[in-house]
Formats: sequence, C-alpha cells, structure tokens
Amino acid sequence: MKTKTEKEILLVALGGNALIRKGQVGTIEEQFQNLKMSIRQIARLSEEYKIIITHGNGPQVGNLLLQQESCNAVPKLPLEILVAQTQGQIGYMIESTLDSELRKMGVISQKSLVNLITYVVVDENDPAFQNPSKPVGPFYTEAKAATLPYPTRKTEKGYRRVVASPQPVTIIEKHEIVKLIEMDFIVICCGGGGIPVIKKGRTFTGVNAVIDKDLASAKLAEEVGVDILLIASDVDGAILRYGEPDQELLRIVTLDEITRYLAEGHFSPGSMGPKIEAAIQFIQGNGKRALITSIETIEESIAGKAGTEIVK
Amino acid sequence: MKTKTEKEILLVALGGNALIRKGQVGTIEEQFQNLKMSIRQIARLSEEYKIIITHGNGPQVGNLLLQQESCNAVPKLPLEILVAQTQGQIGYMIESTLDSELRKMGVISQKSLVNLITYVVVDENDPAFQNPSKPVGPFYTEAKAATLPYPTRKTEKGYRRVVASPQPVTIIEKHEIVKLIEMDFIVICCGGGGIPVIKKGRTFTGVNAVIDKDLASAKLAEEVGVDILLIASDVDGAILRYGEPDQELLRIVTLDEITRYLAEGHFSPGSMGPKIEAAIQFIQGNGKRALITSIETIEESIAGKAGTEIVK
Repeated sequence: MKTKTEKEILLVALGGNALIRKGQVGTIEEQFQNLKMSIRQIARLSEEYKIIITHGNGPQVGNLLLQQESCNAVPKLPLEILVAQTQGQIGYMIESTLDSELRKMGVISQKSLVNLITYVVVDENDPAFQNPSKPVGPFYTEAKAATLPYPTRKTEKGYRRVVASPQPVTIIEKHEIVKLIEMDFIVICCGGGGIPVIKKGRTFTGVNAVIDKDLASAKLAEEVGVDILLIASDVDGAILRYGEPDQELLRIVTLDEITRYLAEGHFSPGSMGPKIEAAIQFIQGNGKRALITSIETIEESIAGKAGTEIVK
Repeated sequence: MKTKTEKEILLVALGGNALIRKGQVGTIEEQFQNLKMSIRQIARLSEEYKIIITHGNGPQVGNLLLQQESCNAVPKLPLEILVAQTQGQIGYMIESTLDSELRKMGVISQKSLVNLITYVVVDENDPAFQNPSKPVGPFYTEAKAATLPYPTRKTEKGYRRVVASPQPVTIIEKHEIVKLIEMDFIVICCGGGGIPVIKKGRTFTGVNAVIDKDLASAKLAEEVGVDILLIASDVDGAILRYGEPDQELLRIVTLDEITRYLAEGHFSPGSMGPKIEAAIQFIQGNGKRALITSIETIEESIAGKAGTEIVK
C-alpha cells in the first residue's frame, strides 16, 4: 500500500506510430518530429507520476534486417542483436527528446532519466517456437521466399519472414528498474519487447524471436508494481466491430466484458489483440488502471476523457 | 575524501580487441567468445571495486555504415544514430556476458548491473569540425572516394571517410551515473565515446562526429570521481620506440616524463596517443591511478604487475 504522498507509477507503452506515421518512409527527421507528440505529454505527466516508458521497434528492426540482407561484406547478426541495436537507437531518440521537453518545462535539474538495455527471458519450450507467426522485415516474392533459409508466410503485401513470438517470462533488469523508480528516475526500457534470451544453466543465450512489446510491458508492470499501464498506438482504443458502419469505441469496460469480446474475435491477433491481453493480465494482477488510447490522447486518457479503460 | 570502508571506483575502458581480434571477421560468436577474457577479470574485480565499463565501437559502427551504403531501400541514418545502435548492441553483449560470469561466481544476487545509453556534449566550435580526421567505415578506391558526399582521406588500405573527432565537454548522464555508482550498480556506459550532441538553446542535437572513447572515459572519470582509470587494448602498455629493436615498455612513469614522451612523438596519434592524453588528463585532475595495459592483463595491471602506470 502506497502512502498518500507517494507518486503512482505510470508505464506508457509507445506504439510504432509514435516514431513513424502511416505513409512516411521514416527518415530520422520524421521520427524525431513525431516523437514530440507523445513525449511532451509524458514530460508533463512526470510531474505527477513516476514514469516508465517502453516502445516498439518493428519498422526499425525491419530496416536493419533489410540492410544486412543487402550486404554480404560483413557478418550477419542474429535477430536479438538487431533488437539490441534498436533499443540503443530508439532509446537515445526518446531520452534526448524527453530531455529537451523537460528542459523547456524548466524541470530537468530535478529529473534523472535513463535508457536501459533490457533483456527478457523466454521459455525455450514455449509453443511459439514450433509455430513462428510474427512477420518481421522486408516483403518478398513467392519465388524469392522459397529460397530463404528461414520460414516465411504470405501476407497482404507479399511474403515475409516469420519468427517465434514467445511469452515473456521475466525481465532480467527488474530489480534495477525497481531501485531506479524508487529514486524517481524516469526509466526507458524493454524496447521492442526486450532482447529475447533463454536460460541455459547459469548463462543466458539470445534466441531468434521477438517478444510482443505490450505483453513485455504487462510483465514488467507486474514485476515492478506499476499502478497504471497505458498502451498508446494509432487507434483511439478498443473498438467493437472495427471497420463496420456501427463500430463502437469502448470507453469503460469490465474485465469480464473485455475477456468475452476478445474470445468473440473483436480484436485482431496481430495488433489490438495483444494490447487487450496485456491489459487483462495487468488488471488480473495488482494493476489499478489499464488504458488503451491513441498517441495524441495520452493525457486525456489518464484524465478519463479518451480511450478505453479496463476495470475490474 | 572517501572513508576506509568505501570501495574505490574503477573505470575500465575496453578497446575494440575485447570484441574482435586481429584477423577475425567478427562474427557474433567470435565477439561473445572474446569478451569473456576481459569480462571475467572485471567480474572478479567487482568484489573489490565499484565498476564502470566503457567500450569502443569502431568495427561495429563501420559495419553498420557499410550495410546502409549497400541498401537504398530504407532511409539512411546519421552517424550518431549508428553510434546509439552500437551502444545497444555492445552494451547488451557486455552486460549479458558479465551477468553470466557473475552468476558463475555465485554473486549475481548482490549485484545490480545496467547498460546506459549515453550522450556526450561537444562544442560546435571545436576545431575538429574544420578538420575531420577520424577514419570510419569501409575502404574505397580513389575513383569511388571522389564521388562520395563526404570528406575522405587516403589510408594504407585505401580511401576512407573521415569525420570530426571533437573533445568531450560533458557527459549528459553524469548525475545518473554518480547515483548508480553510489548504490553499487555496475554501470556500462559511454559506448563508442558516447553519442555526440551539441546544445542548441534548450535542446540537444546529434552531430556527425565520433568522440574518442578514451578521452570520453577520462571526462567521465573526472565528472564522476573515479579513482582508477584502466585503459585496456591490444598492446601491453605505453612503449618507447615502438616497433624498433630497442623498444621499451614503460612500467611506472611520472606525469612529467610521459608528457615529454608524448611531445617527442613516441605515441601514434590514432591509437596510443589518445590513451596517453586520457591518462594525463585523469592524473592532472583528481585521479589516483591511470593504467594502460592489454585486455589479458587487466587484473595484473591493477596489482602493479603489468602494463604502464602514470603517477603524479
């Protein structure tokens, strides 16, 4: 039980559109410009809440895959190393943007702010390894796909490599993150869902997989004792009958209701589905508030004026 | 003044050969295997000292440059973003290797260990920007070099892109690093000399440059109050008349002597030179011990049995 004077912990999970908007190629200028929208809100929220920021990395890791496939002159790196690279890249972009926004608010001297490289344990017996399903990287023709040394799957725009997306078991840096949050550090971590590793005896080994960043965020939230989990993306919230004339944005929804809607197939497995699952896991644990909203309405959602809130 | 019971702070700056040895192409397996040599020693030293680890990134950033030049399908990233990517990559490799070594020693539960993305302020009026001199990335023919949109310089193996290598002015995350060290965290930071930024008003902007990792380490050591700066690379220490039949490894050398040797041109500007400059700056400040040694003899050097020590 927290004392009245202690700040609540808010975890904001930023979707890919915080960095690259639909229709953009994703130049570095575009990415920095886009980031301001979400980061400015988080900077203001840091006056009232202890803050953890996690983020996606889909387009960035896809670009690294494409680049290394185009170049035979240097050794290719496994997927988990590319995830680590994107944690460096995006973490720096978020940290420096947040730093600038806090300076503009005149509060930087009171804030400590770190970006942690984070790795996340997965189970080598996770069934996801038998059924790689998460598309990553470039699109291929069917003929090219057949020549590739890894599994591919047909998607709307062509064939893509698929990798396993196992469940996060535990966040390696959880104790460090707890200590940093206690000291009121703003912590950026778990980028791209974390670098996936399996435990072999006393050592950890990276594996060829990607962890869903919303599920990793929910696991982190549970392990660190987060109060509010906010998942920000390019949609306004959880929507019933999405895309149909009578679609309906859920505003406040109970755990039972949302669990039923999920089972009824209202939420697409590759996008809203994991967000709903993450929110459900969080509220089933000790989470107080789970919010799903758009990048533009992070503050409004916390104020109860936008997005979807899942309640017990 | 530290109390007797308080541990001293040891900063180990790891050279590129901690990851990739001469003659290797630098596969990820090679890099992990090579890392054990230095990291195992640092793990043992962490029982006696508070530890900061910095590292180089030359071959890794070179590979990223080469890959992005080979691929026109995705937007190219500026150099400082590539440095951020290598901080993620190498930071993860060092952290997970150290984690494994500490677990083998049975001490992991007492250790907190983080890898911080670090950016470092440089002066936009630094003369280095007028005279880019640090070679980065792939080798080109003279004809190809003439077509490139950035300055190149002829080297032994061909033409290479050159970038500015300005002096580090301050490490942005210094306050955070001080707090983490006070809490006995092992901190990995300042990878590749840090992500170079200049201050524009209230914001920071990345610049096209690379900071020498030994000079950045000396600046960090000064700002954080490090006791011992150890620079580990592929040579045994500071050597007079290097490569000649009567070459001589310096074992203990005063500040006056080493300053004179440096002025006499004993140390090559691109490799041993910056290490000596970093050691001099550190001892001229409040540093207690500055050590230059090989990756293999980190512990021996601290014990006074290997390498070069610069004393007041």
